[in-house]
Amino acid sequence: MATLSVPAAVPAVAEDCEQLRKAFAGWGTNERLIVSILAHRDAAQRRAIRRAYAEAYGEELLRAIGDEIHGKFERAVIQWTLDPAERDAELANEEAKKWQPGGRALVEIACARTPAQLFAAKQAYHDRFKRSLEEDVAAHVTGDFRKLLVPLVSAYRYDGPEVNTSLAHSEAKLLNGKINEKAYSDDEVVRILTTRSKAQLLATFNSYNDQFSHPITKDLKEDPKNEFLSTLRAIIRCFTCPDRYFEKVVRLALGGVGTDEDTLTRVITTRAEVDLKVIKEAYQKRNSVPLEKAVSKETSRDYEDMMLALLGAEY
Amino acid sequence: MATLSVPAAVPAVAEDCEQLRKAFAGWGTNERLIVSILAHRDAAQRRAIRRAYAEAYGEELLRAIGDEIHGKFERAVIQWTLDPAERDAELANEEAKKWQPGGRALVEIACARTPAQLFAAKQAYHDRFKRSLEEDVAAHVTGDFRKLLVPLVSAYRYDGPEVNTSLAHSEAKLLNGKINEKAYSDDEVVRILTTRSKAQLLATFNSYNDQFSHPITKDLKEDPKNEFLSTLRAIIRCFTCPDRYFEKVVRLALGGVGTDEDTLTRVITTRAEVDLKVIKEAYQKRNSVPLEKAVSKETSRDYEDMMLALLGAEY
Repeated sequence: MATLSVPAAVPAVAEDCEQLRKAFAGWGTNERLIVSILAHRDAAQRRAIRRAYAEAYGEELLRAIGDEIHGKFERAVIQWTLDPAERDAELANEEAKKWQPGGRALVEIACARTPAQLFAAKQAYHDRFKRSLEEDVAAHVTGDFRKLLVPLVSAYRYDGPEVNTSLAHSEAKLLNGKINEKAYSDDEVVRILTTRSKAQLLATFNSYNDQFSHPITKDLKEDPKNEFLSTLRAIIRCFTCPDRYFEKVVRLALGGVGTDEDTLTRVITTRAEVDLKVIKEAYQKRNSVPLEKAVSKETSRDYEDMMLALLGAEY
Repeated sequence: MATLSVPAAVPAVAEDCEQLRKAFAGWGTNERLIVSILAHRDAAQRRAIRRAYAEAYGEELLRAIGDEIHGKFERAVIQWTLDPAERDAELANEEAKKWQPGGRALVEIACARTPAQLFAAKQAYHDRFKRSLEEDVAAHVTGDFRKLLVPLVSAYRYDGPEVNTSLAHSEAKLLNGKINEKAYSDDEVVRILTTRSKAQLLATFNSYNDQFSHPITKDLKEDPKNEFLSTLRAIIRCFTCPDRYFEKVVRLALGGVGTDEDTLTRVITTRAEVDLKVIKEAYQKRNSVPLEKAVSKETSRDYEDMMLALLGAEY
């Protein structure tokens, strides 16, 4: 379900490094060459290239890239080249430091990764920032959002398939009661959403649907401008339908006055090796236009090349 | 600083298994033989014995032990024989399920282990109980204790030595302000104690002492019967002076009307491979009597043998 395309015959790591070195050399930069290499290597291959590059030239590859290219193209190439766990650590740190209620990186990292991947991101966070993710979120986020996001990024959820159906039934009822009272940030709502396993939550949301004849997300739509409610919906949708969740994020990023490149880059770099093919299908279905075409219309030059390459567009 | 004594020439794993099998065989059980083997093997050796025993006899060692011995002796032998992470998972589950305000197992597992050890315990919890530690604590503990204990067991703290001294200064001040207002369960108090690294917390408590001329634990002593306050002190002492913290826990376990064997067993089995020697020194210093002597006075028979063996008593 990934869109990443790796050539059948991948060049040797040393050759990739040499080519990248050439792309950086002399006046001007060969951006196409950078894209043609890095956008077509998987996480393990990129890691090997970074290690070999640093050994061969005594310089970090990401630093060399930063010296050569700039702006949103630089951001996309660097974010993509990072290991998934390091990338998540970077995105989480950026969002925690300048928290705004519409932020989605923390929600996605907490809910659209496996518990093991979230833990790997937290380890990478320690290594890079010499602090923990939870302490930074707790220190920068305030109010109801803090109450929700700190446990959301802290919990190490169970990842197995076991489900307690009677618990799902009673917790669905409990959620419905709190929602009816408009007690959206109630301790019990936070407890259920931040600690239960994905399988258990899916059972709870299904039971909600069965008991109350419509999805829980519908009941959380009272006020479309209420950012706390839309964060709750984002959490639920990251668990229940990540493809449609990400489709919507991309649609809004492309659709506003001016494109939201940071968001577009985040979704494409974090999903290209996971499920971007399914997100593309959801996009086509919802918008009657291929995602590549929409991205191509809203972006340009090297940044466009990079996005299209990760989207698996045919050259 | 451990008290565990492993013989210079450790028998082969197969021989240990054979001896244990003999100890269980026929009428009656050879309890001394069980103690003489298991109480003198380190975690890796006990793990190897469990694996080899199950392979050789098609039966779990811990189940065989449970069939042969009973009561507090059984509990001590089984708790000791478990891997440290599994043992912590068991202790945490037991305490979470029947939570009482005086409980200390969760505090110790969250604060007197390294972040990596706490994480290992959470993984073992998933394996054994098919749920997460945080969801069980959140589901069973209530009120202020839940507000404190859920983040306490959830956070993956940074484990490095780096300290931000100006942050330590300002957070010490913040803690003092909240304590003066008697806002002991305030969000900020919980945030600091549950997310900051051990090194950062030590700097904060030192700064508290410097700014206000006495330790923070003294300010948290307002009412000796307030269990929430004594839990806060336990958290702080697990970070600042684990030897004196555990000395006191053992002293109270031995000192009441009737001995609290569960607590004694917990401290001795969890610390024998860590720092029980230092705890013994603290005990001798505080009580003018060796800990072995005090334990011997309050316990008997096979359970006494097991405790003394783990305490490193000379035979």
